[in-house]
Amino acid sequence: MRWAEGFIAVDWGTTNRRGYLISGDGRCTAEMEDDQGILAVGQGKFPAAVAQIRERLGDRPLLMAGMVGSNRGWIEAPYVPCPAGLSDLADRLIWAEEGEAAIVPGLSYLSDECADVMRGEEVQILGAVAAGLVPDNCLICHPGTHNKWINVVEGRIISFRTVMTGEMFNLLKEYSILADLLAEPATEGAAFHEGVRRGLSHDGLTAELFSVRARVLLDQMKRENAASYTSGLLIGADIRVGLREQPEAEVIVMGRPELTSLFSSALVEAGQEAREVDGEQAFVAGIRELAELIQ
Amino acid sequence: MRWAEGFIAVDWGTTNRRGYLISGDGRCTAEMEDDQGILAVGQGKFPAAVAQIRERLGDRPLLMAGMVGSNRGWIEAPYVPCPAGLSDLADRLIWAEEGEAAIVPGLSYLSDECADVMRGEEVQILGAVAAGLVPDNCLICHPGTHNKWINVVEGRIISFRTVMTGEMFNLLKEYSILADLLAEPATEGAAFHEGVRRGLSHDGLTAELFSVRARVLLDQMKRENAASYTSGLLIGADIRVGLREQPEAEVIVMGRPELTSLFSSALVEAGQEAREVDGEQAFVAGIRELAELIQ
Repeated sequence: MRWAEGFIAVDWGTTNRRGYLISGDGRCTAEMEDDQGILAVGQGKFPAAVAQIRERLGDRPLLMAGMVGSNRGWIEAPYVPCPAGLSDLADRLIWAEEGEAAIVPGLSYLSDECADVMRGEEVQILGAVAAGLVPDNCLICHPGTHNKWINVVEGRIISFRTVMTGEMFNLLKEYSILADLLAEPATEGAAFHEGVRRGLSHDGLTAELFSVRARVLLDQMKRENAASYTSGLLIGADIRVGLREQPEAEVIVMGRPELTSLFSSALVEAGQEAREVDGEQAFVAGIRELAELIQ
Repeated sequence: MRWAEGFIAVDWGTTNRRGYLISGDGRCTAEMEDDQGILAVGQGKFPAAVAQIRERLGDRPLLMAGMVGSNRGWIEAPYVPCPAGLSDLADRLIWAEEGEAAIVPGLSYLSDECADVMRGEEVQILGAVAAGLVPDNCLICHPGTHNKWINVVEGRIISFRTVMTGEMFNLLKEYSILADLLAEPATEGAAFHEGVRRGLSHDGLTAELFSVRARVLLDQMKRENAASYTSGLLIGADIRVGLREQPEAEVIVMGRPELTSLFSSALVEAGQEAREVDGEQAFVAGIRELAELIQ
């Protein structure tokens, strides 16, 4: 009954969290976002961190997804193995406060070839399917610190693969021999597309990355183009992984618009139709569906 | 005349330097090593840093190689384009102190496909050829922060390729989501060889790297094996690049013994004969040949 009168949805990541107040009729009536990701909160302090959220959005029950369910979060919510749909997530919720605060588990995928895990994206993906934002059968590309390629078949996630493209770019930019070349923001343009083509057509990423420095030193590339080229190189190599089993129709690129646009443009370069879907909208749709399964 | 009576050879890298006193009859009679790499010395302080070396090894002329000739070193020694042999290096020495202190230039390689640079390894490689430690025609693998694959034809370096394997492992170990899994030292063994096989047979390094974490989380790999597996993965991917044009005979693995042994063992896993050559011995041989060309 209490859930039917509205609840708070939280997308709780490693470095940030976003909260949404969902009213009884399913509308999102208030939002918050801050930098209190799970690493900033720390062990034992989640009850206080949740009280903060309720102070801002109201005294409602909470449904949380993302890294809050990891071994560094509030309570560990064991991975649900693929294939999995929304009802599998609902069946395996972990209650941090009985009846009042639940954590959505992440997904795992194991095959002879791969081992992989996700936390948070599953709500967006299954939510987008449930809300009809994407087809029941599709390939989804979900950029972020760790880009995910997700196969959806008959509305369930059957397999996925993670590529650490965003994190790799950040490591190179902050700490590597390329750091002074990567200070500029990466933008779409000729240098980005040259990088994408190179990443799509060449194996040997760690050699291609060193070559960025050599190209600048030997006047083969302007210094100000190095960041866009490198971003293209990493995204091109990422798409090689994602398109191993080329889909028949468009690829759905889901997430934050500033990230989906680069991937979508690189997919077109790879000869693949792509359509962008806003990840926040998909998250709210997914968490709403899950809340209905609780009631 | 002064050079014929002996000189000091310096292998001056980014983070360390090694000095060798070479007597008139070509023997190495004293050595030093410290952490005064070019970044520790800094602009304008090289004369003082060189005075330190002479205090320890004697008041002799100096022949220096490595990053001391880069744009962050003492004086920039422009890259000599491949193909290049010892006499090309001797012709393009840069004199930091007239007749008393010279810097050996690095090499560059440019083709339609690649852009690449090296500083320091060229002395070892051409020295090893001149001293008969390696054949006139061979493929050399030179592990380090940046692993190099060098094609030697008729005693000259005709092309080379750099793979940032060592730096990548260090970035992952220090700063990435894998950091807590990579604390153990990487050692040869079953986990290392499993990583090598995976790296040799699978494209998509940034996906394979994320999978290391998933394998541990899903109990597919013991945590204590993650560092060796990851090292193997990176070295396997590196060897894919290096063996694109498979050599007919053995690969020479040159450098510091603690690094050459892992690469050599991974090469054998790739079905390639490999022979290790000590890089320090090769450096002294090369710098001695160069000094003779000065006189």
